[in-house]
Amino acid sequence: MQNMEQTAALAHQAALRLAASSAQERDRALGAVSEELLKRKERIFAANREDMNRGRREGLSEPLMKRLAFDQNKMEDTLSGIASLRTLPDPVGRTTLSTELSPGLNLYRVTCPIGTIGVIFESRPDALVQIAALCLKSGNAVLLKGGSEARETNRALFTAIEAGTASSGMPEGWAGLMESRADVAEMLKMDRYIDLIIPRGTNEFVRYIIEHSRIPVMGHADGICHTYVDAAADIDMAIRVAVDGKAQYAAVCNATETLLCHRNIAEAFLPRLKAAMDSAGVRLLGCPRTTRIIPVEDATDEDWDTEYLDYVLSVRVVDSLADAISHVNSHGSGHTDAIVTEDTEAAARFLREVDSAGVFHNCSTRFADGFRYGFGAEVGIATGKLHARGPVGLEGLLSYKYKLLGSGQIVADFASDSMSFTHRALHEECPM
Amino acid sequence: MQNMEQTAALAHQAALRLAASSAQERDRALGAVSEELLKRKERIFAANREDMNRGRREGLSEPLMKRLAFDQNKMEDTLSGIASLRTLPDPVGRTTLSTELSPGLNLYRVTCPIGTIGVIFESRPDALVQIAALCLKSGNAVLLKGGSEARETNRALFTAIEAGTASSGMPEGWAGLMESRADVAEMLKMDRYIDLIIPRGTNEFVRYIIEHSRIPVMGHADGICHTYVDAAADIDMAIRVAVDGKAQYAAVCNATETLLCHRNIAEAFLPRLKAAMDSAGVRLLGCPRTTRIIPVEDATDEDWDTEYLDYVLSVRVVDSLADAISHVNSHGSGHTDAIVTEDTEAAARFLREVDSAGVFHNCSTRFADGFRYGFGAEVGIATGKLHARGPVGLEGLLSYKYKLLGSGQIVADFASDSMSFTHRALHEECPM
Repeated sequence: MQNMEQTAALAHQAALRLAASSAQERDRALGAVSEELLKRKERIFAANREDMNRGRREGLSEPLMKRLAFDQNKMEDTLSGIASLRTLPDPVGRTTLSTELSPGLNLYRVTCPIGTIGVIFESRPDALVQIAALCLKSGNAVLLKGGSEARETNRALFTAIEAGTASSGMPEGWAGLMESRADVAEMLKMDRYIDLIIPRGTNEFVRYIIEHSRIPVMGHADGICHTYVDAAADIDMAIRVAVDGKAQYAAVCNATETLLCHRNIAEAFLPRLKAAMDSAGVRLLGCPRTTRIIPVEDATDEDWDTEYLDYVLSVRVVDSLADAISHVNSHGSGHTDAIVTEDTEAAARFLREVDSAGVFHNCSTRFADGFRYGFGAEVGIATGKLHARGPVGLEGLLSYKYKLLGSGQIVADFASDSMSFTHRALHEECPM
Repeated sequence: MQNMEQTAALAHQAALRLAASSAQERDRALGAVSEELLKRKERIFAANREDMNRGRREGLSEPLMKRLAFDQNKMEDTLSGIASLRTLPDPVGRTTLSTELSPGLNLYRVTCPIGTIGVIFESRPDALVQIAALCLKSGNAVLLKGGSEARETNRALFTAIEAGTASSGMPEGWAGLMESRADVAEMLKMDRYIDLIIPRGTNEFVRYIIEHSRIPVMGHADGICHTYVDAAADIDMAIRVAVDGKAQYAAVCNATETLLCHRNIAEAFLPRLKAAMDSAGVRLLGCPRTTRIIPVEDATDEDWDTEYLDYVLSVRVVDSLADAISHVNSHGSGHTDAIVTEDTEAAARFLREVDSAGVFHNCSTRFADGFRYGFGAEVGIATGKLHARGPVGLEGLLSYKYKLLGSGQIVADFASDSMSFTHRALHEECPM
């Protein structure tokens, strides 16, 4: 059995060869992975039943059991995800800048894979296939570390991925599976071999990864999203947007956790909000000014920093747009925040001054999602401000390199002024 | 006196307001900084003389003393740098993606400042002004930590920056100066307030920062650049490019440190290389196959991993293009590597497979530079593969946010199929 270091070193080597593969080769390999998954589906389902039985015996919670399942439905979703990925254009090798530095000396910025991606996820064996497929599409090697609760399923899925990619000529070791718990801590130190860590799991889990990694991490721990109902809001619209933001699907990161309401509209808005949220089964917690208008429980200071992921909403009355912005920037998680208002200037200011990946006007925070944004495939949602921010599509798995094509140019000629820079935009593809 | 934490918290607050400032306001503030620098120039020169005298007494090395100087020439360079920065277009608020998700629901990706940048630099007080100006232009707050050897100069320069920006209405505390040695260690832990660290100094210094920071770091420790002379190289061109790469300016990160030479051209090329490098005052160290052809010292294994920053070049004969690529990927630092060849296919393969920020064909590695690339201003050179890579212009100081402009849309309508996504490219600027 290989150790962690060997697996990572092999992936790092494979990444260099994978970066030189063609889009046709990688798309063909994706197709072969689909075929292997289909061919082995009974074995995969059996492995999953084993994990599910063990989980049941060990008393895993119902939501965890649900995420652990890999059945016919999950298989179909997985296969259609791979199929749609194959139809996306090649993200690698696109020229994003072209400049003539001097006649015959042309600079091109060209997209390329990042290298080796480490993915650490809890439950959800379907995430293993999804992420591996995204990495393959973008020419990255991948190290996968799943939770022990999904061990058998992960092994069965990984075997299919390995078989499909080996038969279609992808470099050996481009994907590696980590199994032991100690692997996570070791993985987070391997900045020599791993370029990026993507964690997928609960807040605590992601926060642990962020705090212990020497490798850059792309992801989000908290999703404390706000909907701010401005003095100039259309109340009907505000109710619809708030109910959708909270209750359309409460257990996700882009659900609204706190509603802010301008004092001038509070008397008219809050009673209607309460009625609508009661119907939707949402429990409200209010600040003192809220509880003077509607009979709801008291919110504590902690509530403003809490991601409920449940049918609970904290409500606060604010004095001004500035106070709303300041509340969001102090208590939010930089994920997604919305303003409902008919006042265009207020909306523009909210969108400019709120420091979040998504700033929305007159729509639900629930729209913050790679598929809804039209990215076709989603790597995850990032709340950091470097590299990729917000919902991340395949672009987040890419870096770029500068290709400079000359005909013997040397810097000395420019330093001596016998040559000079033209810096003329070329608007053309890199020829090599 | 404020402590470090207060200074950082204040900068973080100021960053939110700075992000909302207009390009006109920021350009006006840059102008005011120039005026203050000019007005205070005698005081600044006097402060620098104090630092220089102390440095001389304490026996600072000649190169360090040279970097410490801030005289009339440095002042002129600094002012012309600020003047050219003012003429650059506003990097903030550019729309880089626009998509109609559904009629009346439009998504825009808009550039915005990152937030608060921590800059840690050795000597070179001119770097303080340059980086502060870049941050101001891009709407970022900045925390500056200079070396104690430049203390008086840094204070004098910082006072001018503060005066100029305060008089032109920039938010108080947008720039902070850190002075004590303990500040560095503390700074690297302040991920709550600081979004990005940019170190400027020697390899050891940058490596220390990278290893100890909890905040993302943008920079490069080593610059081990290669020039590979392929079997199909034009020998005259190869000599010119190699001499320029090594000797045009040896003490910089983009200078060539190792020359690789294909065995089929070694007999013809190496004697001419030796003659040219002798004339340029460059000492050669060779692998066994090199020393059989030209009389030079033996290179040790360590030489392949050494950045000389001096008139020294290690030379290795390789069997193939593949071996050259593999040498570069194993021993290089991912900075910049060049191939000299008339064989277009060999060049294309080298450019595709070498995993470096800059991959050059038939030109000197010394071209790897933000000014030569036409970026107008340079933040530094990054060898990491996330966020920015290679020479980094103002773009490296930017993030983006997604602005979603609706008219009451909710996700429930799309989930129930009463609405559907159009995902139509808009090619337009964000209206707010």
